[in-house]
Amino acid sequence: MALIVQKYGGTSVGSIERIKAVAERVARARDRGDQLVVVVSAMAGETNRLLDLAGRLSDTPHPREADALVATGEQVSAALMAIRLQALGYPALSLLGYQLRITTDSRHGAAKIKAIDRDRISQALEDGRIVVVAGFQGVNPAGDITTLGRGASDLTAVALAAVLNAAACEIYTDVDGVYTADPNICPRARRLERISYDEMLEMAGLGAKVLQLRSVELARRFNVPLVVKSSFSEDTRGTWVGQEDRAMENVLVSGVTLDQNQSKITLTGVEDRPGLAARIFGPIAESGIVVDMIIQNAGADGRADLTFTVPRADLRRALELVRAVAGEIGAAGVRHEDQVAKVSIVGVGMRTHAGVAATMFKVLAAEGINIEMIATSEIKVSVVVNAKYGELAMRALHDAFLGENPALNEG
Amino acid sequence: MALIVQKYGGTSVGSIERIKAVAERVARARDRGDQLVVVVSAMAGETNRLLDLAGRLSDTPHPREADALVATGEQVSAALMAIRLQALGYPALSLLGYQLRITTDSRHGAAKIKAIDRDRISQALEDGRIVVVAGFQGVNPAGDITTLGRGASDLTAVALAAVLNAAACEIYTDVDGVYTADPNICPRARRLERISYDEMLEMAGLGAKVLQLRSVELARRFNVPLVVKSSFSEDTRGTWVGQEDRAMENVLVSGVTLDQNQSKITLTGVEDRPGLAARIFGPIAESGIVVDMIIQNAGADGRADLTFTVPRADLRRALELVRAVAGEIGAAGVRHEDQVAKVSIVGVGMRTHAGVAATMFKVLAAEGINIEMIATSEIKVSVVVNAKYGELAMRALHDAFLGENPALNEG
Repeated sequence: MALIVQKYGGTSVGSIERIKAVAERVARARDRGDQLVVVVSAMAGETNRLLDLAGRLSDTPHPREADALVATGEQVSAALMAIRLQALGYPALSLLGYQLRITTDSRHGAAKIKAIDRDRISQALEDGRIVVVAGFQGVNPAGDITTLGRGASDLTAVALAAVLNAAACEIYTDVDGVYTADPNICPRARRLERISYDEMLEMAGLGAKVLQLRSVELARRFNVPLVVKSSFSEDTRGTWVGQEDRAMENVLVSGVTLDQNQSKITLTGVEDRPGLAARIFGPIAESGIVVDMIIQNAGADGRADLTFTVPRADLRRALELVRAVAGEIGAAGVRHEDQVAKVSIVGVGMRTHAGVAATMFKVLAAEGINIEMIATSEIKVSVVVNAKYGELAMRALHDAFLGENPALNEG
Repeated sequence: MALIVQKYGGTSVGSIERIKAVAERVARARDRGDQLVVVVSAMAGETNRLLDLAGRLSDTPHPREADALVATGEQVSAALMAIRLQALGYPALSLLGYQLRITTDSRHGAAKIKAIDRDRISQALEDGRIVVVAGFQGVNPAGDITTLGRGASDLTAVALAAVLNAAACEIYTDVDGVYTADPNICPRARRLERISYDEMLEMAGLGAKVLQLRSVELARRFNVPLVVKSSFSEDTRGTWVGQEDRAMENVLVSGVTLDQNQSKITLTGVEDRPGLAARIFGPIAESGIVVDMIIQNAGADGRADLTFTVPRADLRRALELVRAVAGEIGAAGVRHEDQVAKVSIVGVGMRTHAGVAATMFKVLAAEGINIEMIATSEIKVSVVVNAKYGELAMRALHDAFLGENPALNEG
């Protein structure tokens, strides 16, 4: 008898019919003899509906009240799921964040879990209950309801799996696993059987939206095996996310990602002396803008061009800050490109195999795509290209590393 | 500076526009210097929407889960009201049943309040907050959410007013007070300035739906002054509900009520011996049917006719039970009338003034209305008439006791 945590996202419980289907799935797992904790999100659209109500009453709803408001979405889902499981004859029990004593800090809307009291949930499991947990919510030391941030029902599930030492944390969503690339862009993308935490983190951070970043970090820290599956399909395979193993190292590239919401700023003729980078990036960081890639090309004249990327939504604010500094530090000028794409390949095999980046550049060159920036990490190579070539670059790289002919992808 | 508890019902907070209007009203009260506790119901229709979802998942939703489900309705209203008050610049704070430690028994759906911890709410008031409370909900000793029954946001408000020793508990609804009769039936019905707890209890029990019965009982027990007002009108008068005083005794009749949902059962030829009433009414009580009026006419032959009323919705079940018993006890027969109306006059003046009942019978006789049953209490006279005469009887009695010519109504 294994203890399994299952998490069902908003589309998976998005209607009465979907709740019924999920309850059947939970019931079958119970019939197989597993102990079950079922974490549910709000019904699809509900969180936005509630936030819209708040938005019609206040331009800046107080975060404490907004949390009390939106937490009802998961409370409704949890109660309905328990009601359905009971109607099927299963001993279900819903529990909310404060009832589970999921204690968090007081940063409403993005609270961090500090502790989970495992007694309440363990007792319910020992009593033979299927425990249905309202995801996304906790309680601060003052007893106020907090929420953990968008997509954070994943986090609730992983945290409970860690505390309970569960055999697995199954994340049910509307896709049947993690793909080698976005199937909407790469028709030949295929589901991965296995992927390491590190690769998943790079892919999540690079814009693959299957799993929430913080939940993967937490799973890695506590070594919680994650399985991503579809709640809409009877296919039970999904993608397994766990610790790196030897087999994984034999695969150079696990996935290709594309981020089309980037823009690029270049400061030309910057004097090459200490402290200038801090002058430039300090104000940007203070204003909460995330700078992704930074590249500096030192020229022969002791002056350099400094190029970096920011999310397109932040471009205007970033430009204002940069232009203000540019004059002070005597830069020659400020250029920007508002539409660039970042294409990345990710794979733990890169740790032990050289030449992956070179192959990547060759593939892009063969397509006539100019590389504007390059950044590498241990298990990732990212390039910035003109936005109009983003999808082409992704498809070309996918075909080369992950297509029909696997020659390029075995170390 | 007075401490006031205000309660707003479902129609009063039924839309974003209504919530804005109520927040303005609360803000004005605050500007007058009052300390305020604001109890809110779920937005009109929300409780039914949630129960409908549950009903599509289970024929008999588990009461614990149903309570966790419907309690979200008041949670949403409370958060939205706090958000709006804050947007207007007022220091509001929403609190839920478990946060206020409104401890109840575990009878889900109809829980009884056992205790309220006044520290949390007093602290918030001392901090200068307008405390917005989610009505209708509590928490049992195990930490499960309970609800107090339909209409029980009134009860939350009265209980808080009692614990806090509030100067008044204002119940805001969609009518501007308690009326001498239902204005839909009696065009000349008028708002009462004052009414005693006892009269209000009789009127609430007799079908006047302005206040929930249990909340009036609680208000009487703790001597909480109630004021019923409209949240839709700028008229600030309303109806005051409090302890009986000398002025009230000078009014014979405060109100006329009509209950059109009654039916009548008669057992004929019942032997007049001890124990038979228990044989007849025992099974009916056990099946949860509320018997209202009972009348027995002993005949000269030692046999009697026994007549009683039950809610029309329960008539069929009651008839089955009565017919089963009728044979066993040797009754001559069972008759029933499925449409009767109960018309009542209520007034504390009856305690000290004789002849009110006689006047009532005279008024009905003048209209040619036959009285089928009569029941009296200290402050009430009820008669059962053929349903088709119900509204006519009500109007005739209202005109006689409460109309333009007040002669009949002064002791």
